[in-house]
Amino acid sequence: MLEFFAVAVLLLLTVILNARWILGIKVENALAAQISGHIHDGAKAFLSSEYKVMFPWIVVLFIVLALLTGYKSAIAFLAGALFSIAAGYIGMQIATLANVRTTEAARRGSGDALSVAFSAGSVMGMTVVAFGLLGLGLVVFVFGGFEKAGGIVSSFSLGASFVALFARVGGGIFTKAADVGADLVGKVEANIPEDDPRNPAVIADNVGDNVGDVAGMGADLYESYVGSIVACIVLALAEKNMVGLSFVLWAVSLGALSSWFTILLVRGISSRSHMEPANVFRMGSILVTLLAVGFVCLIPMWTGASWSYVVSTVAGMIVGIAIGFITDYYTMGAPIKEIAKASETGAATNILSGMAIAMQSTFLPVLLVGLATIVAYLSAGLFGIALAGVGMLCTLAYSLSVDAYGPVADNAGGIAEMAHFSPQVREVTDGLDALGNATAAMGKGFAIASAALTALALFAAFNSAVGIKALDVSDPKVLTGVMVGAASPFLFSSIVINAVSRTAFVIVKEVRRQFKEIPGLLSGQANPDYVVCVSISTSHALKNMVVPALLALILPLASYFLLGVEGVGGVLIGQTVSGFVMAVYMANAGGAWDNAKKLIEGGFLGGKGSEAHHAAVIGDTVGDPLKDTAGPSINILMKLSTVVSLILIPIFVQMGLPVLIDLFAK
Amino acid sequence: MLEFFAVAVLLLLTVILNARWILGIKVENALAAQISGHIHDGAKAFLSSEYKVMFPWIVVLFIVLALLTGYKSAIAFLAGALFSIAAGYIGMQIATLANVRTTEAARRGSGDALSVAFSAGSVMGMTVVAFGLLGLGLVVFVFGGFEKAGGIVSSFSLGASFVALFARVGGGIFTKAADVGADLVGKVEANIPEDDPRNPAVIADNVGDNVGDVAGMGADLYESYVGSIVACIVLALAEKNMVGLSFVLWAVSLGALSSWFTILLVRGISSRSHMEPANVFRMGSILVTLLAVGFVCLIPMWTGASWSYVVSTVAGMIVGIAIGFITDYYTMGAPIKEIAKASETGAATNILSGMAIAMQSTFLPVLLVGLATIVAYLSAGLFGIALAGVGMLCTLAYSLSVDAYGPVADNAGGIAEMAHFSPQVREVTDGLDALGNATAAMGKGFAIASAALTALALFAAFNSAVGIKALDVSDPKVLTGVMVGAASPFLFSSIVINAVSRTAFVIVKEVRRQFKEIPGLLSGQANPDYVVCVSISTSHALKNMVVPALLALILPLASYFLLGVEGVGGVLIGQTVSGFVMAVYMANAGGAWDNAKKLIEGGFLGGKGSEAHHAAVIGDTVGDPLKDTAGPSINILMKLSTVVSLILIPIFVQMGLPVLIDLFAK
Repeated sequence: MLEFFAVAVLLLLTVILNARWILGIKVENALAAQISGHIHDGAKAFLSSEYKVMFPWIVVLFIVLALLTGYKSAIAFLAGALFSIAAGYIGMQIATLANVRTTEAARRGSGDALSVAFSAGSVMGMTVVAFGLLGLGLVVFVFGGFEKAGGIVSSFSLGASFVALFARVGGGIFTKAADVGADLVGKVEANIPEDDPRNPAVIADNVGDNVGDVAGMGADLYESYVGSIVACIVLALAEKNMVGLSFVLWAVSLGALSSWFTILLVRGISSRSHMEPANVFRMGSILVTLLAVGFVCLIPMWTGASWSYVVSTVAGMIVGIAIGFITDYYTMGAPIKEIAKASETGAATNILSGMAIAMQSTFLPVLLVGLATIVAYLSAGLFGIALAGVGMLCTLAYSLSVDAYGPVADNAGGIAEMAHFSPQVREVTDGLDALGNATAAMGKGFAIASAALTALALFAAFNSAVGIKALDVSDPKVLTGVMVGAASPFLFSSIVINAVSRTAFVIVKEVRRQFKEIPGLLSGQANPDYVVCVSISTSHALKNMVVPALLALILPLASYFLLGVEGVGGVLIGQTVSGFVMAVYMANAGGAWDNAKKLIEGGFLGGKGSEAHHAAVIGDTVGDPLKDTAGPSINILMKLSTVVSLILIPIFVQMGLPVLIDLFAK
Repeated sequence: MLEFFAVAVLLLLTVILNARWILGIKVENALAAQISGHIHDGAKAFLSSEYKVMFPWIVVLFIVLALLTGYKSAIAFLAGALFSIAAGYIGMQIATLANVRTTEAARRGSGDALSVAFSAGSVMGMTVVAFGLLGLGLVVFVFGGFEKAGGIVSSFSLGASFVALFARVGGGIFTKAADVGADLVGKVEANIPEDDPRNPAVIADNVGDNVGDVAGMGADLYESYVGSIVACIVLALAEKNMVGLSFVLWAVSLGALSSWFTILLVRGISSRSHMEPANVFRMGSILVTLLAVGFVCLIPMWTGASWSYVVSTVAGMIVGIAIGFITDYYTMGAPIKEIAKASETGAATNILSGMAIAMQSTFLPVLLVGLATIVAYLSAGLFGIALAGVGMLCTLAYSLSVDAYGPVADNAGGIAEMAHFSPQVREVTDGLDALGNATAAMGKGFAIASAALTALALFAAFNSAVGIKALDVSDPKVLTGVMVGAASPFLFSSIVINAVSRTAFVIVKEVRRQFKEIPGLLSGQANPDYVVCVSISTSHALKNMVVPALLALILPLASYFLLGVEGVGGVLIGQTVSGFVMAVYMANAGGAWDNAKKLIEGGFLGGKGSEAHHAAVIGDTVGDPLKDTAGPSINILMKLSTVVSLILIPIFVQMGLPVLIDLFAK
């Protein structure tokens, strides 16, 4: 446990130094400061509304857990939720303060701006990891060590899942509704450019980047990070494998240490050298993996752990990196050119081409995760599968830093545009923004794969907890569970996409109203009311996430009462497998359409305003809610359903709650 | 067995009378006769090219089967292929002769035209069923009765699967490539209406309706029909359940008899009464189910079969009908209006709305098939699941007659347009065509559900054949199989959609060439070269289906060598479950977009030429290859992979062929 605390303290100290450094940068442009203030306030307003909506749910779950599993689990649940909230709050706070400082730094060149934006991202990355380690360490420590920690760490993980649900689904609806709403009236009807300050929804759009891509992504990966560690702990405890447990603790801590070192190095290089920023990040990815592999290979020396654990862990690491590169290819490589070319014959062919490429892109990631599962299992059994998840996630502090850099750069570009900075500054921020899009796509691929692997690891823990020795898929209870589970990501996505459309429509109406009713708005003599758009997005996003949230919670529990434990197992595995494929499909489709559009905007096939561009814009709009709302939300669905089942189903079994099918079977 | 032969003879006699009656109708309009001749010749040309491509594959498989499983299986395989080919040939022959006669009959009113088109459809419906019964009956009879029929009937089913692969995938690529190709140049570039005789691809488009929706659909359902019966036979023989076997034979025969009676009644009513055609068909669906349920309830009286068999069979019937109505709702009910309204804000919102609705539409069908599986299993074990498949398909003769009516009516409308029939005639054919679209959507839902249930039944037979007692999905070999299997319909769809795009592009180039190089073509003074477009579609469709065909064959076999028997089981179940959901999604998305467009064309939200219409056309174009090529092709993928595994994997096991993972596991 000590290693967790030590690394957490190291990371948090670095976070504080980084944050102080960022805040020390003076913002000279008053307009920019004002705009950034709007974004900052909007994001804070969203968070506080979110907390208010979350609060009664947390209370209810706290009571349910206290009654069913005892007060320790309930407190652990609360701790998991609070640490996740705190990590999200800090990360977003810094991100929304760093955006304008990145714009300021961009006056002095690309290197300076990159280093501010990456520092802000690294605050998120390191805080998430530090709070994961600290939180888990604390609940285990306070409640008397590992002997009886199984249920407690699971509840901690449930708290994290629960916050992730709100942050990712709510944030996802917010960000895309604001984006689509702003574009539909702004670009299409009023014919003003993106990020134009006259558009009343433009601040909401920029808030959305932070709410969705910083807080949402952070909570999602916090959940995966914690979940993968928890799955290892639960399995190690069930197998009374204390050497394995110690291996996991070390692997996680040394992975975080490798990330810390890489973050400092990348930051140093980015501000001083003249390397391409993309190459700096790529080099960082490879370095952090090599370091972590090196460290992990050393662990058997002092823990006496088997080499098979090293193999399982490294299998997860390799697959994590490989999926990043595959995503890179499908969302930025040769296929993008095909989609762009297909745009020449119209929107329909653009969309079909993107669909086909995204469908194809699912195969390799699935195959690789499958292979990693097998390698891990052959080496170290079910515990090995959980280790592969930890392997993929142990360098999260670095990879999340790179992810969270994106929205800061994106916002910096928006502020440069709105505050009328010089073209040179905008060129710098545009370059950083393009890189951010690239890292965002790779980050999504990583988030999905890690969510799938975490769900599988938690699923293994679930089987062990309910005492399922073999989950026979030719048993119709399991089979029906698998079928319904496989359909559930489709239902879930459908609800979420509709929520985006509905919310976007309300924003469209509000923007139209402001254009009509505020005199002098379009000519630039009056200011729009940004706050209304932010609060509309907030309230609708949060209202519309109740149904998907209930679905994720109720589906596995209802399956118990209909189909029994085996049915729940079926639902979980069906949901994870189908959710994994669908999430990759949606993320890559959206990423590919987005970049095909950008390729054309860069001058390919006629550039902006051409027929091909018009078609590509439609593809991009279709892809937006797929890649930024539905796809990422599926990550949460997979993990939340599994962790809820892991905690509650064993209790249902213990209480002997009735199962409908058993009544008929007799 | 005798009951099979008796019903088959009855159906075939009716087919002959029907066909003679249709051919007896005189075609008076010379231009119409000429156009119909083009379509007829084009369809025949496609079929003969298809046979040529198929031939070497059949020979290779024949030899492989002869070597591995003995000459009897090889001959049964050949018989399965030949009977399927014959059924497709006859059905398409009559359909392409009946189209122009439907147009002629439309002069005398809607009732007359309906009765010609439905008679033509019923030729397909009854031929498919009769040849299924006759073929299966013959191979069992000739090779010495049921005692040793297990492997033989499976091989018969493989023959049917194999032809279905070519007919459905090849036909699906053909029909949509021709359709999209014709529209892209005709409607969009040259600005001439659909079905305009000046468009060189217009005949290919009409040929496509027959090739895809008559021959392709027929072969698909022939395969499902045979497959569901074969699964029952294999399971009954494995369990030495001769009473069950006898129950199946009677259920199938009496279902066919019910269909025969309903077909005659519907034909009689359609020509004489003034009922709405849609209501006539709907009444027929309910009547045929009631009759079949009544008959099936009687079977225990003389076979001594258990009532549990009745329950399983009826569960399948009810789900079959229910899925039809669900499809009806999602592709023609209230959701269509939502999609149409979403078109007002452009193509992107139209597409997102259609996606969301189609995603939602997957849940109930999957749930219902799951419930039917459970009810059937609780009543009669694995054999019960196979019986549910037979229940759903035993009234196929009627439902396929309704399906196959659609393309005949569609063609009749095209001919009326091209041959300049009076507006009254076109009004009649338009009405019949609209009904055909409705029945086509329901038919697709039925085809998918029956394919899924057949695949599940064959999967049960596979488990029994390889001696899998429990397929443990928490075993990573199985799990990886499930994951890869679940991704395979995505990969398959991707390949097929790309094939459509590529082929359509070649047609576009050819049509452009003809418009440019043939003087007087656009002004109507010269005739286009229809034949070239047909032969381009044919050759490209057949060339492009080699890769998907190989994928369906190789994936399960390769999984054996990598993951062993359990891995194959995982692949099959992952593929079936994910394929089922994806196929419903794609079929309903396409159907919903299509009908949203038609709704707008009917005057809703501004009608033809409005902004909303423009957006809806894009959605429709995106949906076309999903609903008519990729979706239906997945039906084949599910069944073919399963039946190939059912035949070959037990032999691999017997031969002790090495499995990679076993080498490492030691």
